[in-house]
Amino acid sequence: MTKIAVLGSGSWGTALSMVLADNGHSVELWSRSEEQVRSINLEKRNPNYLPDVLLPEGIHATMDLSEAIEGAHVAVLVVPTKAMRQVLPELRRVMKHDMLFVHASKGIEPESNLRISQIIEEEIPEQLRTGVVVLSGPSHAEEVCQKQPTTVTSACENEEHARLVQDLFMNNDFRVYTNPDVIGVEMGGALKNIIAIGAGMTAGLGFGDNAKAALMTRGLAEMARLGLKQGANPMTFAGLGGLGDLIVTCTSVHSRNWRAGYALGTGKSVEEVEQDMGMVVEGIRTTKAAYQLAKKLNVEMPITEELYQVLFHNKPVDEAVSELMGRVKKQEVEDLKLGDDPLNRLEP
Amino acid sequence: MTKIAVLGSGSWGTALSMVLADNGHSVELWSRSEEQVRSINLEKRNPNYLPDVLLPEGIHATMDLSEAIEGAHVAVLVVPTKAMRQVLPELRRVMKHDMLFVHASKGIEPESNLRISQIIEEEIPEQLRTGVVVLSGPSHAEEVCQKQPTTVTSACENEEHARLVQDLFMNNDFRVYTNPDVIGVEMGGALKNIIAIGAGMTAGLGFGDNAKAALMTRGLAEMARLGLKQGANPMTFAGLGGLGDLIVTCTSVHSRNWRAGYALGTGKSVEEVEQDMGMVVEGIRTTKAAYQLAKKLNVEMPITEELYQVLFHNKPVDEAVSELMGRVKKQEVEDLKLGDDPLNRLEP
Repeated sequence: MTKIAVLGSGSWGTALSMVLADNGHSVELWSRSEEQVRSINLEKRNPNYLPDVLLPEGIHATMDLSEAIEGAHVAVLVVPTKAMRQVLPELRRVMKHDMLFVHASKGIEPESNLRISQIIEEEIPEQLRTGVVVLSGPSHAEEVCQKQPTTVTSACENEEHARLVQDLFMNNDFRVYTNPDVIGVEMGGALKNIIAIGAGMTAGLGFGDNAKAALMTRGLAEMARLGLKQGANPMTFAGLGGLGDLIVTCTSVHSRNWRAGYALGTGKSVEEVEQDMGMVVEGIRTTKAAYQLAKKLNVEMPITEELYQVLFHNKPVDEAVSELMGRVKKQEVEDLKLGDDPLNRLEP
Repeated sequence: MTKIAVLGSGSWGTALSMVLADNGHSVELWSRSEEQVRSINLEKRNPNYLPDVLLPEGIHATMDLSEAIEGAHVAVLVVPTKAMRQVLPELRRVMKHDMLFVHASKGIEPESNLRISQIIEEEIPEQLRTGVVVLSGPSHAEEVCQKQPTTVTSACENEEHARLVQDLFMNNDFRVYTNPDVIGVEMGGALKNIIAIGAGMTAGLGFGDNAKAALMTRGLAEMARLGLKQGANPMTFAGLGGLGDLIVTCTSVHSRNWRAGYALGTGKSVEEVEQDMGMVVEGIRTTKAAYQLAKKLNVEMPITEELYQVLFHNKPVDEAVSELMGRVKKQEVEDLKLGDDPLNRLEP
């Protein structure tokens, strides 16, 4: 039995706590909400995010960050990207020894354009972190709690760390694979939220499955282009953290990014959508970050660009989508930038 | 205005005829059903496949193959893979000059393991064919008839032929891209039906979206592996004819292969499913062909293999699916066979 600190008690943090507790670990789940902590400890429920799920023994909640990490050598970070810059300095102040950081958040920070592992490396001094591992893949929290078969990737350049995290989480229903490509897995998990907003938007405008499939196909190509330019292995985008996560986010009723896009497609404003959701829509901030990154690195990302104009410059959604659909590109291989050129020749 | 013969009056043949007629071409649509011919010509409807669609002027139906191709220099073949060996010899007997063959069918022939373009090349002597072009991509017929935005690929090694077909079909709603990789586009279109049966089966068994995404991700990897071994460009599988078509077939209510798999998952027998569908389920025969091909070429295709056992050797579906889900593979990159090896090193 290992004590593990899970920091962030949204639906995903709660679901991952369940997996760890089911595997016999002792989980200290950190939350900022007094009501939530009480409900988790007394009623074994997280009423805000997963009201129907009965939590197993082995999960204890706390509002005290020191208590959460005391005696734990692994910290699982599951807070929104936006909250990283608040939580990490708080954490650093109460840390008494080094820890292995696992993060399961999916975003890129606007302006700095940093991935989450890079933010962790900026905020936590090297002597306080054993390593940083990314856990990502097609995994709706609701289904993980129902013990539906789920597959995810544990990504770290250090294979030993990737395997350690794999062993902590792996069970019959929750299958964990390792991948050394941190950049690819982080970029895949973050960028797919952009495409999911786009897919929701086309559905909200009344377009069908043919259009959705085209958007997702081109979406994956532009995700891979941006990843490649940063040094990711393009094949990671064909794996669980890329394609797998893209599929689940674009085609499932559970996805909040898809639902946000759908609401935009039906005519709601960005402000209305964010208010209605009541949860963080990571894809909105990620669109800004990816747009900036694409400009900086000179990568063509037409879907991201149109979405950026909709989200941040009030471009009408129908105009954006019809521009995307009507794009005059005749050579498929040209569109993918993957035709005649072997992939490796495009690598930096 | 060009006269074009469309051979096969199922839902896809009818939808493609509409696109061509909308573009101002004169379409002669060949059908074996007297009732259908009468209904198309007199009521402008195809009652069996697309009862709600009013066909445009410019489509004339006939049971007479000679009449269908008279004066036409382009023949669009849209019959089930199984019917190719009957229709092509009939066609050859009535041909008076060479034609450009376009096919929009998706399958591989069991035993011979030939792709459809290869069957055409076997059945039609070289002096009677200008070339063979494949038209494939994420395109449910129902949506094409509603003029929903749709994107497809026109594939031919001969760029001029690919462009000619592109020009015939291209309009504002129906976007056509070219790709020189015939093998990849044909294999993508055919093999995706196998994965769609598998996706339907997992849903029929009650598994959720996380499992579906994992199955599709691994499915695309095994599709690409088999394509690669035959000389396809692996990147074609990331395009419209691979990933795009996979997405639309696995996630849409319109897909008959998905529906067949779903019925199998709920406990129906293969015979019951084929009878209930009343349409050809290409994926069933394709599973057999792909299984044989994988054995012959020594390519690992776990999903195809499990499905083959279910469809042809009465393996219980739940056993097959749980074996797939529980497979002990720890390195994602190993599973994809795409990790350390640059793709081009795997090319034949």
